[in-house]
Amino acid sequence: MSLKDAGANIKAIVDGWARFSEEEGKLTRVFLSPEHKACSEAVITEMGSAGMTARLDAIGNVVGRYEAAAPGAKTLITGSHIDTVRDAGAYDGNLGVALPIACIADLNARGKRLPFAVEVVAFGDEEGVRFPTTLSGSRGLAGTLDPAVLSLSDSEGTSLAEALRHFGCDPEGISAEARKAEEVLAFVEVHIEQGPVLEAEDLPVGVVTAINAASRFGVTLEGIAGHAGTVPMRLRRDALAGAAEMIGAIEARAVGDTDLVATVGRIEAAPGAVNVIPGRVNFTLDIRAPKDGQRNGAIADLEETLGVIAERRGLRLTIERLYDEGAVACDPALMTQLDQAISRQGLRPLRLPSGAGHDAMALASLCPIAMLFVRCDGGISHNPLESITTEDAGIAAQVFLDFLEGLDPESLTR
Amino acid sequence: MSLKDAGANIKAIVDGWARFSEEEGKLTRVFLSPEHKACSEAVITEMGSAGMTARLDAIGNVVGRYEAAAPGAKTLITGSHIDTVRDAGAYDGNLGVALPIACIADLNARGKRLPFAVEVVAFGDEEGVRFPTTLSGSRGLAGTLDPAVLSLSDSEGTSLAEALRHFGCDPEGISAEARKAEEVLAFVEVHIEQGPVLEAEDLPVGVVTAINAASRFGVTLEGIAGHAGTVPMRLRRDALAGAAEMIGAIEARAVGDTDLVATVGRIEAAPGAVNVIPGRVNFTLDIRAPKDGQRNGAIADLEETLGVIAERRGLRLTIERLYDEGAVACDPALMTQLDQAISRQGLRPLRLPSGAGHDAMALASLCPIAMLFVRCDGGISHNPLESITTEDAGIAAQVFLDFLEGLDPESLTR
Repeated sequence: MSLKDAGANIKAIVDGWARFSEEEGKLTRVFLSPEHKACSEAVITEMGSAGMTARLDAIGNVVGRYEAAAPGAKTLITGSHIDTVRDAGAYDGNLGVALPIACIADLNARGKRLPFAVEVVAFGDEEGVRFPTTLSGSRGLAGTLDPAVLSLSDSEGTSLAEALRHFGCDPEGISAEARKAEEVLAFVEVHIEQGPVLEAEDLPVGVVTAINAASRFGVTLEGIAGHAGTVPMRLRRDALAGAAEMIGAIEARAVGDTDLVATVGRIEAAPGAVNVIPGRVNFTLDIRAPKDGQRNGAIADLEETLGVIAERRGLRLTIERLYDEGAVACDPALMTQLDQAISRQGLRPLRLPSGAGHDAMALASLCPIAMLFVRCDGGISHNPLESITTEDAGIAAQVFLDFLEGLDPESLTR
Repeated sequence: MSLKDAGANIKAIVDGWARFSEEEGKLTRVFLSPEHKACSEAVITEMGSAGMTARLDAIGNVVGRYEAAAPGAKTLITGSHIDTVRDAGAYDGNLGVALPIACIADLNARGKRLPFAVEVVAFGDEEGVRFPTTLSGSRGLAGTLDPAVLSLSDSEGTSLAEALRHFGCDPEGISAEARKAEEVLAFVEVHIEQGPVLEAEDLPVGVVTAINAASRFGVTLEGIAGHAGTVPMRLRRDALAGAAEMIGAIEARAVGDTDLVATVGRIEAAPGAVNVIPGRVNFTLDIRAPKDGQRNGAIADLEETLGVIAERRGLRLTIERLYDEGAVACDPALMTQLDQAISRQGLRPLRLPSGAGHDAMALASLCPIAMLFVRCDGGISHNPLESITTEDAGIAAQVFLDFLEGLDPESLTR
């Protein structure tokens, strides 16, 4: 496989799939839609051309299989999702399906089999746009899909079960899709970074250490509204001045903690007039870190700091926890093997956490997981401007193929 | 005049006028409305009972006159406004009309004349609710009313000139209402504080030093929006984190500067999602100070500080000046005489700036001005909860009457 050809080939596949959209000139492809069906068929065709047997599974994933050198070997699962957000970029998810297919095609062209089977899965539901659930495809494989989600409906009242049947899937067969842990070697996902770290480090690829723990909070501050002209500074209980001090403290706490990020994304100040001191402020807080303990430590520190600020300013503080997702660590042996494949390409290995969620999270309960991130232009994702270079696609494919060919199944323990 | 009776009497007058409203159970009385007309007639009646001659003038003010001891004396003008905001309190403006009438009634009952005439004016337009202009009544007296405002229309398309004629006024006669500076001794306005300072100082009245200069700005910060999970802290250009630091700097600058106030009353962060780093923030800044130089110094400092913060954070900063109103200083001799009247009541004189605008601002181009502030409950104004105590009303009336009786016209120079 030449790097140049591989990169061009992968980009051509992804660009081809990008035509399967509900809107002309934009990419929107939600779970179990007609365009998802058309894309799934294109994926099956692509897998077939690469020498894999491919099928649609019971939960709407496309599963392509490339058999091992010998029967009875374990299976390494790779892949990513082919559903998209609305007005999406082409590479989010799709790259992680097209790139492994290209690698398998190369193995197949050389008639090479590995000491493990490889399955490439095009998961159907990672973005969670259509139904009020997410990761249903990867949870189906992991055997952790709650059957109750089948009753959930989309905005038009169609249940997930009905949509699956209309798609050509049999919801009754979902439990049979659950893999047996003893038969699975690992899950390794290739994905665009969706952030600016690789670009800043001038590197085409990086190895993910963990999918970050994430917690979200709603913070409310109540002070006393008042006339901007008549209330002296010393008599104010300005909720926005308090919020500003808190946002500063949140930023300072995060800056001092490697790989931890904290974001205040939304803020409202009431009553919200140029000449009225804000009496009430609501803001959101999103905290993520590669380790649960790290995240929880920051949360505890910030709860204390925010309490001190509120107390000193005479503000009433309410902190409501809206969401919690534990950290998912990547497997050290897999990370090492990915690092080595990167080094063999003459590149500096870089490890970084994933701030966004991925299908790999759901597979972590089944098997060791790892992720290879690919640099994307400006760190931009979930946006039509999302792009990667042909060169980077080729390098990533070479790294991933080299990783597959170099992987000793015995080196992985669980 | 007994303090107790005066306070009760003044509150009864104000409460009576509060019935003249466009809404049952709420006080809303806008310029040149039927309820403004009814209230004006009640004011004329009250003035007549107090021994004054009273008339509606050409710009919609009620003017009551209590002649001097001898002909040819100058006139001291007092009064305030009887128009209100929507869902107003009863005392804003109205107290400053009712209280002087009660004082004149007391003089009249004693058959006492002063070495100057006293006019009590019930200005019609201080709040600027109906037409896109304000202070038209007090500007009419000062001779500074721009005739162009007569063409301005309310939300129903009625021009100010038409509304005046319908009210029974002759717009052609406005210029004749302008007072001659040589005939006017001073303008002294009684008004509720509309802020919490007197309450915090445990004082019923205070003497205003100046009506604060006020400037308003719209501040825009542009950074780079990004994924709250994938962009490390060191690579962010978070517009809201920058705004928070600026709000902190604004507060710190104001706290350190006596009588200066700075308020960020409105803020919007875009795109405004819990998991997206804000790429753009707009906020307002309102700065007021008793002296123009003081305000301008703070503005210059803050422009520099905000620029430094934006530069360090890689944010694009735009500061747009929306509004500027110069400071209006009160007359030192009048302030001293008010202080003395307060001291004679056994009270500690306190001086404080006015953060809100008043009719006195417009009169400052005609004659020396002063204001006596009266404590209001919780500093609350422009709200149905606005209130003053009967005792404070009585003390304020005694102070104002004593000021009038003690005022030597020769002590005032211009």
